[in-house]
Amino acid sequence: MKIAFQGEIGAFSEEAACALFPGAEPTPCPTFEAVFEAVASGAAERGVIPIENSLFGSVHVNYDLLRARDLRITAEHHLRVRHCLMALPGVTLADVRAVYSHPQALGQCAAFLRERLPHAEAVPAYDTAGAAKMVAAEARRDAAAIAGAQAAAEYGLDVLAESIESNHRNFTRFLALAREADAPVPASDGAPLKTSIVYAQRENVPGGLFKSLAVFALRDIDLFKIESRPLVGSPGQYLFYLDLAGSVADEAVQRALDHLGEIAAFVKVLGSYPRGDVEG
Amino acid sequence: MKIAFQGEIGAFSEEAACALFPGAEPTPCPTFEAVFEAVASGAAERGVIPIENSLFGSVHVNYDLLRARDLRITAEHHLRVRHCLMALPGVTLADVRAVYSHPQALGQCAAFLRERLPHAEAVPAYDTAGAAKMVAAEARRDAAAIAGAQAAAEYGLDVLAESIESNHRNFTRFLALAREADAPVPASDGAPLKTSIVYAQRENVPGGLFKSLAVFALRDIDLFKIESRPLVGSPGQYLFYLDLAGSVADEAVQRALDHLGEIAAFVKVLGSYPRGDVEG
Repeated sequence: MKIAFQGEIGAFSEEAACALFPGAEPTPCPTFEAVFEAVASGAAERGVIPIENSLFGSVHVNYDLLRARDLRITAEHHLRVRHCLMALPGVTLADVRAVYSHPQALGQCAAFLRERLPHAEAVPAYDTAGAAKMVAAEARRDAAAIAGAQAAAEYGLDVLAESIESNHRNFTRFLALAREADAPVPASDGAPLKTSIVYAQRENVPGGLFKSLAVFALRDIDLFKIESRPLVGSPGQYLFYLDLAGSVADEAVQRALDHLGEIAAFVKVLGSYPRGDVEG
Repeated sequence: MKIAFQGEIGAFSEEAACALFPGAEPTPCPTFEAVFEAVASGAAERGVIPIENSLFGSVHVNYDLLRARDLRITAEHHLRVRHCLMALPGVTLADVRAVYSHPQALGQCAAFLRERLPHAEAVPAYDTAGAAKMVAAEARRDAAAIAGAQAAAEYGLDVLAESIESNHRNFTRFLALAREADAPVPASDGAPLKTSIVYAQRENVPGGLFKSLAVFALRDIDLFKIESRPLVGSPGQYLFYLDLAGSVADEAVQRALDHLGEIAAFVKVLGSYPRGDVEG
């Protein structure tokens, strides 16, 4: 079973693909578009994409692709972003004169670097896994990379220190995608499910947002996420992303969505799937 | 007047600082924390930070800093992210063998590069302005950079092509920050104002989100933004970011916020300020 993901081998997306589909074959793609295309064409059975990060927000480009393409969300996974310092086997902290990583990762690990590697220079790279790959490929014995543990395993580096980020509350939520024909809608029969939708308010509906949430509140349907996104070029018009409790196979959810259809310009269901846990 | 911003000279943040404060002196800082610190300490009169991008979502780390530090939002600006191809004077498209930029910018300009520079290699850099700086500093006559027009002016490069991104709906919203003592609360006396708040629901309030929006809907106060953010480590608990019409100096807004205080675990007002326009 092939799982398409965006990035280098060893990237956090590959780690999420392995957590969602143990034993499957993660297949790197250069762009998110290529991930959607691989799944739509059948070149991969599933795709895995990041949809939001606890520090850096929602990945709107992937919401746009979910809206444009007819794939279905089948699962979610919250991956704790744990940064590791890694170097070639035998290299010690005292040898390290340069630390390569993505600027966000360098920033998140600045306190560790200041305290434990005050003699090393922090060098920005365009990607965490790419930094690990470079240190390995160039056989640098004076350098280390900051990336996920998976990158160390992939490129034959040793982990010198793990979870070196200052803020341990760094999670990325990933979604698994499938073709609609390959993903029957699950029913809420015990396991808690979640449904993701995107919709737009109709123009000139006073209190439209409040009314659209009422269709769920009046049916005691819990919401897990709500986010508005301005429609550029249409002042005052918004897209809304909503995650709600239950499945589109549930009668209450179906009635709520029908009701939403009465007041929204459009509603698109992105999928119903089991709720993933966030580690504390 | 000094305006602290994060990034290199020539970065989009500097462009936003110049648009918000014409004639002032933009002052680069290495991190967002340093921008807040510069304003809090009085080293800079104002700070300018990105808060959300139309393709890449909210910058939660800056919301966290707004929540932790006692600065006040005094203005907003929506900057259209226009990517330009730039090179040393005299260099033509035919000379260019390598194009340096941030991977997001390279991706956004991929169609242009494929069509107009099929012979050039796209090389990832950690920053758009940093790529321009490097091409200039190393006097590369075989290379170009993709960055904002401001970076070309700053580093003495010529713009070979402008607005080369495929999606022209790429905006970043920036906020201006001041110390509370330096920023009196404006009253809604004609010019349309906006107020930004962050709040958390109290635990175990059924339909808490719906109730919290009711305090505004029942007073006909329009909302411009709503976003939930899961509190990592507190399953089922959320932070909410809300932008609403009016000023905290308005009686209706003040009553609504008092009402919200009855049902929220906490409410923090981040500032009241004039509404900025988004170009179409």
